Amino acid sequence: MGWTRLLAALTLMLFAMPVAARGADPLPSWHDTGPKQAIMAYVGKVTAKGPGYVAPAERIAVFDNDGALWPENPVPFQAAYAFDEIRRRAPAEPALAADPMVQALLAGDMTTLLAGKHHDGLMHIMALTHAGMTTDEFNAAVSAWMNTARHPKFGRPYDQLTYQPMQELLRYLRANGFKTFIVSGGGADFMRVWSERVYGIPPEQVVGSSTRSRFETRDGRPVLVKTMDAVFVDDKDGKPVGIQQFIGRRPIAAFGNSDGDKAMLEYVTIGNPHPSFGMIVRHTDAAREYQYDVNPKSSGTLVDALKEAPARGWTVVDMAADWRTVFADTAPGKKADVRVTERQ
Amino acid sequence: MGWTRLLAALTLMLFAMPVAARGADPLPSWHDTGPKQAIMAYVGKVTAKGPGYVAPAERIAVFDNDGALWPENPVPFQAAYAFDEIRRRAPAEPALAADPMVQALLAGDMTTLLAGKHHDGLMHIMALTHAGMTTDEFNAAVSAWMNTARHPKFGRPYDQLTYQPMQELLRYLRANGFKTFIVSGGGADFMRVWSERVYGIPPEQVVGSSTRSRFETRDGRPVLVKTMDAVFVDDKDGKPVGIQQFIGRRPIAAFGNSDGDKAMLEYVTIGNPHPSFGMIVRHTDAAREYQYDVNPKSSGTLVDALKEAPARGWTVVDMAADWRTVFADTAPGKKADVRVTERQ
Repeated sequence: MGWTRLLAALTLMLFAMPVAARGADPLPSWHDTGPKQAIMAYVGKVTAKGPGYVAPAERIAVFDNDGALWPENPVPFQAAYAFDEIRRRAPAEPALAADPMVQALLAGDMTTLLAGKHHDGLMHIMALTHAGMTTDEFNAAVSAWMNTARHPKFGRPYDQLTYQPMQELLRYLRANGFKTFIVSGGGADFMRVWSERVYGIPPEQVVGSSTRSRFETRDGRPVLVKTMDAVFVDDKDGKPVGIQQFIGRRPIAAFGNSDGDKAMLEYVTIGNPHPSFGMIVRHTDAAREYQYDVNPKSSGTLVDALKEAPARGWTVVDMAADWRTVFADTAPGKKADVRVTERQ
Repeated sequence: MGWTRLLAALTLMLFAMPVAARGADPLPSWHDTGPKQAIMAYVGKVTAKGPGYVAPAERIAVFDNDGALWPENPVPFQAAYAFDEIRRRAPAEPALAADPMVQALLAGDMTTLLAGKHHDGLMHIMALTHAGMTTDEFNAAVSAWMNTARHPKFGRPYDQLTYQPMQELLRYLRANGFKTFIVSGGGADFMRVWSERVYGIPPEQVVGSSTRSRFETRDGRPVLVKTMDAVFVDDKDGKPVGIQQFIGRRPIAAFGNSDGDKAMLEYVTIGNPHPSFGMIVRHTDAAREYQYDVNPKSSGTLVDALKEAPARGWTVVDMAADWRTVFADTAPGKKADVRVTERQ
């Protein structure tokens, strides 16, 4: 056997070994309870040659973001961005400061903001902070905010509040040939600013609520101006609709946490020609994160999807019982800047 | 040096070698003229460590489909699908057969179909064949058509009419770390049925004209029903808009053939912080394909983008002069089922 063939043979052997056989536990932040076992059994099934095998091209996994990959309390982080932007800009923009809904926000009058069936005041605040600027300007504003804003409960940058077990799950799936997508009610443009850096999920794999931008030339350069036209809300029934429009094929695995994810979980797990996997992260951990089902502080209600879970075979993660670690730098051996109860 | 380190070193050496150095010409269907040289120089620049280097994650290349990856004459192939579907279904569907526009089509009355500013009759035919069914039903119909329909000039299945030089270009870019996307005025759902098999471009990397489907449960199973709601036309200014909404970052290379691609070429090549590349395929080959600029048989007008090309540094491909082969099995040494003039 010549050098080249030996090299090829050794390389093949290396890559033919299952990931689990090559090294350490891929999900160290998960306790060895039901959900972890279910995840690993599923991944083993679809990657091993056999009746459950799924070709890599079909291994599409979709993740809700708010409440599934990072918290959504006390308000979704994108709403925190919008509120902070209004507070930052209002002193220098008299027209903005004169807006009645801006005044309500600055006065802390959430009742006025949330009035109306569609929370018209809040939607107006979102429009003021998410439209009328170029995509480059918006991206720069989100980046600047992410660098300076701190979460009110945890006191750290929002992008340091991703769930460590879910980060491991994303990496584990990708190491097993899955392509990971975000499918979130949050704004696609907001998430795309940091999704690649924070989750390893590139912008083109982020599906979210979106509007249609407008193509313009400014100072001889093409720009895209954000508008509120053709609003698409990527939540509830909108999630399978968004999957169809933006991904164009049916995922085999879906991960969510609220009733907003129910339609997506159904679309992925009912009548799928491939073996499928559905998972709900249940917020049961008042000490380390939040505890809610029926009455979250803002979004994240989990009632109907939880009822449906047993019949559908969806895996329900009990955050308090199933996660060894919640946030990354609270893991043993790392410096924690937030006091949490560490379960062993 | 132990075995493992030796193996690692050899593997690294192998993968660190530029693709061109490892083997044969990656673009054998291109003559060694300006466009091929420009493509290879550009790819060399962005992949080599140096001032023009672009990280793989940013190597996004966008391709128009009709006229750029396959022909769009005598009618765009998706229109051929719509016409054939009407002819196939009309005998068994009296309500469909009674439709005035269906009757115009069956009578070959294109004047009636194309009347009106927005070609209302044609749009109605598109709606009849692209909405009201589930996505699975639509996909099955497109697949069945692709298996049986033949192009009127070339006499072969439409999916055997992709341009071999462009297929090589897609592979060459991917071998150099590019992610290739279709960004086409054609329907995303239509292209996604065969894009992976035919171009190696998965559904999630196909951006096209699209509508919003409706999520329903039928016989206890979730389905997506195609509608004509929220129509998005991915052409002209719609192309950069679609890129923003579906890909979410600015590509560095764009490949088109008509004025419908001008805005996309501008967005990709003007003021891009990375080195960028724009290319126009010009239909100059009446013998092997078609010859047109100003007056194509249907879509594909190329006037303004061609005028703008020199100032923008866009590479213009003269199909007759720059392509050794047009369609795959007309290459030397392969059995050709279409008589073409082979230039040497």
